[in-house]
Amino acid sequence: MKDLESLTASQAANALAKREIKATDLLLACLDRIGQRESTVKAWVSLGKENALARARELDKGAIKGLLHGLPIGVKDLFDTFDLPTSYGSPIYNNHYPATDAVSVALMRQAGGIILGKTVTTEFATFKVPVTTNPHDPKYTPGGSSSGSAAAVADFMVPLATGSQTAGSIIRPASFCGVIGYKPSYGKISTGGVKSLSPIQDTLGCFGRSVGDVALGVAAMSGDHSLANITDLHNKPRIAICKTPDWGLTQKETRAALAIARYAAEVIAKGAVGDLKLPTLFDDFSQTQARIMGAELSRTLTFERMRFPKKLSPQITKQLNEGAAISYEQYTKDLLLNQEAHAAIELIFSKDVDLIIAPSAAGEALIAKEGTGNPIFCRIWTLLGLPCINLNITSGPTGLPVGVQLIAGPGKDHFLLSAARAFARSLSDPVMRDQA
Amino acid sequence: MKDLESLTASQAANALAKREIKATDLLLACLDRIGQRESTVKAWVSLGKENALARARELDKGAIKGLLHGLPIGVKDLFDTFDLPTSYGSPIYNNHYPATDAVSVALMRQAGGIILGKTVTTEFATFKVPVTTNPHDPKYTPGGSSSGSAAAVADFMVPLATGSQTAGSIIRPASFCGVIGYKPSYGKISTGGVKSLSPIQDTLGCFGRSVGDVALGVAAMSGDHSLANITDLHNKPRIAICKTPDWGLTQKETRAALAIARYAAEVIAKGAVGDLKLPTLFDDFSQTQARIMGAELSRTLTFERMRFPKKLSPQITKQLNEGAAISYEQYTKDLLLNQEAHAAIELIFSKDVDLIIAPSAAGEALIAKEGTGNPIFCRIWTLLGLPCINLNITSGPTGLPVGVQLIAGPGKDHFLLSAARAFARSLSDPVMRDQA
Repeated sequence: MKDLESLTASQAANALAKREIKATDLLLACLDRIGQRESTVKAWVSLGKENALARARELDKGAIKGLLHGLPIGVKDLFDTFDLPTSYGSPIYNNHYPATDAVSVALMRQAGGIILGKTVTTEFATFKVPVTTNPHDPKYTPGGSSSGSAAAVADFMVPLATGSQTAGSIIRPASFCGVIGYKPSYGKISTGGVKSLSPIQDTLGCFGRSVGDVALGVAAMSGDHSLANITDLHNKPRIAICKTPDWGLTQKETRAALAIARYAAEVIAKGAVGDLKLPTLFDDFSQTQARIMGAELSRTLTFERMRFPKKLSPQITKQLNEGAAISYEQYTKDLLLNQEAHAAIELIFSKDVDLIIAPSAAGEALIAKEGTGNPIFCRIWTLLGLPCINLNITSGPTGLPVGVQLIAGPGKDHFLLSAARAFARSLSDPVMRDQA
Repeated sequence: MKDLESLTASQAANALAKREIKATDLLLACLDRIGQRESTVKAWVSLGKENALARARELDKGAIKGLLHGLPIGVKDLFDTFDLPTSYGSPIYNNHYPATDAVSVALMRQAGGIILGKTVTTEFATFKVPVTTNPHDPKYTPGGSSSGSAAAVADFMVPLATGSQTAGSIIRPASFCGVIGYKPSYGKISTGGVKSLSPIQDTLGCFGRSVGDVALGVAAMSGDHSLANITDLHNKPRIAICKTPDWGLTQKETRAALAIARYAAEVIAKGAVGDLKLPTLFDDFSQTQARIMGAELSRTLTFERMRFPKKLSPQITKQLNEGAAISYEQYTKDLLLNQEAHAAIELIFSKDVDLIIAPSAAGEALIAKEGTGNPIFCRIWTLLGLPCINLNITSGPTGLPVGVQLIAGPGKDHFLLSAARAFARSLSDPVMRDQA
């Protein structure tokens, strides 16, 4: 078998479970690919090659461990790992070896996953430009903050990698790199052992190259193994396009992606697809999200602010100072608005719609030095805690990928995966794409 | 000034802010007390005497840092501290030095608090019998899992100590030791850097010897400094006694404590105090809580279960195995019931009542070897995320303290503190106590 590194996580997991391929061979193929491409892509902070190989050999000999048996996995360097240094993207934590794995990492190992290495995160998962490049063109950003994970999966270095999202850190890099990114419902995966930013909305998830891949990843990370069995859509879902209050910031490729997604949605909905206008309460909700995040971030990084102010970049220092300047009174007001918004979106999902389609990002990836891109199109969905999946839809003027996100109601992860798979199938139909 | 160790945290903070006493003297008084009593009480896992003294001297010289300026604080050994070993009550983490402080610890230091040492927690904050004894009589348990913190505060070793509660780990030891224990609303204090048990309900809080003390502690730990200013009650609150579905388990001293609390409540409510019967949905809700906790605990301790099974006690191994045996389907059902329960309690608080009074524990402290006591009277309030405060009310047949808990509606921490202070004032009126 050739090109093992190009198998999706689901394909590989399937072949591994049937002993059609060996974990060792898959791992070596991934390591080969990394060897060829890493000097350009720079997705990795560290690789645990020897440990990974030992683990692969062990798995090839022993019983099938679980959903991720033998899959090489990249772990965002915001997640603690007991056997690989964990720096959270900050020089403060150079050569820091946590005593334990993050809960989600331990669950992936328990399911037979092989933790191959740590992928680049921006500084404490915020906005400092990372070293990682976009695998499609190194002049461009892969997005952030889960930069290395999105790039590694897009570049066939690993079939699966973990991410975290507090504003737009899974969906945006997935869109920029042209992979599937899945941020499940808030709380679905324990954040234990992952550096906290804004506890009210920190959410873990993963990247893959098919909907089945990310289902597998989140199934293992959460312990809800039933997520790995994506069922077919039974009823005609009510689907709506939501341009969000920030539609004015979209570039034409994102508008095109939404138009293509509308066609696919009509096939799946077996009929018309509506347009969802959010209540006025949401007009400034992305600013509300940013304020809550800023206020919480300034508190969660108190230790670093007090003890290592000089090891914080100017970017994050500015962000932390702005966050610290937000009064607790303002923060409390924002939390109340957030409660209202939760009630409002719940009502929308119970009355009007099952699935929302919205932009993943303003457009294709930016030039790397201009930053990791604006998370604005993800902010409201993250604070609302809704499950979101980025699907790769089209490409922009530079030829870089452009996605859209599908968003389901609170806790509707199973449905979201079913809908995303139906979407992906429609989109890979060439007739469908020609119609777009 | 003599007996500095007997000052409450509020009294000491006040005197320190006015430079009437020195942080160094207060610290030395606490260290003296610890020197006299620690061999009996065994509240501490480690003391950072030299660091604490250095910090006290620095604080005595410099500007007033914040709410906790110069206060010696005990930190439950479930919270990470960069300068003191943190073992989570488990031999797996012997001599583990975290790279960072828990968010709440960093915020306390920022507010001028002096972290004096780490207090005993049970094994991963579960049920294994700890070494700590009840300061009122060493034959008895101080309760758990925040055993050392409750005992240290009760024994005048420190004026303030942190705790965490996933079932009843703040309120129960507070009741057994006769101190004020405050578990604020779920989410009020970031759990970043505290060993996770059941993320959906892990809640941090603290112990003090007055309502003002715990207000001060949670104000600093959360960053909501307004909590330190307890306002007087303006309106007549609607107060109800809730015997909870587990009333059959109460001992007579707990029933007496509730009767006394009813008198105090009538003074505060300026009239009748009702009885709240929870809807039938709550009949088995303490089991629901236990199942959710068990299922989540088995996942959050996956790393320890996989790598160090022999270093886990038989008690926790049993608990983890039982948790792992709970199907995800059952867990999902329980989460849905929890959502319904949240909606039901919100309705009760909006329609019927402002403050609930309920047992803190079945009765006074048990003989130490019999365990840390049953958390059953706390389980439902913890899962509901409601703010709770234990007040010391009476004593049991053995002369050990017995408290009740006051419980306010979701997010009503300010009101709860106001009500608790009004209560404490009524209770310290000897006429009031004679009436009981």
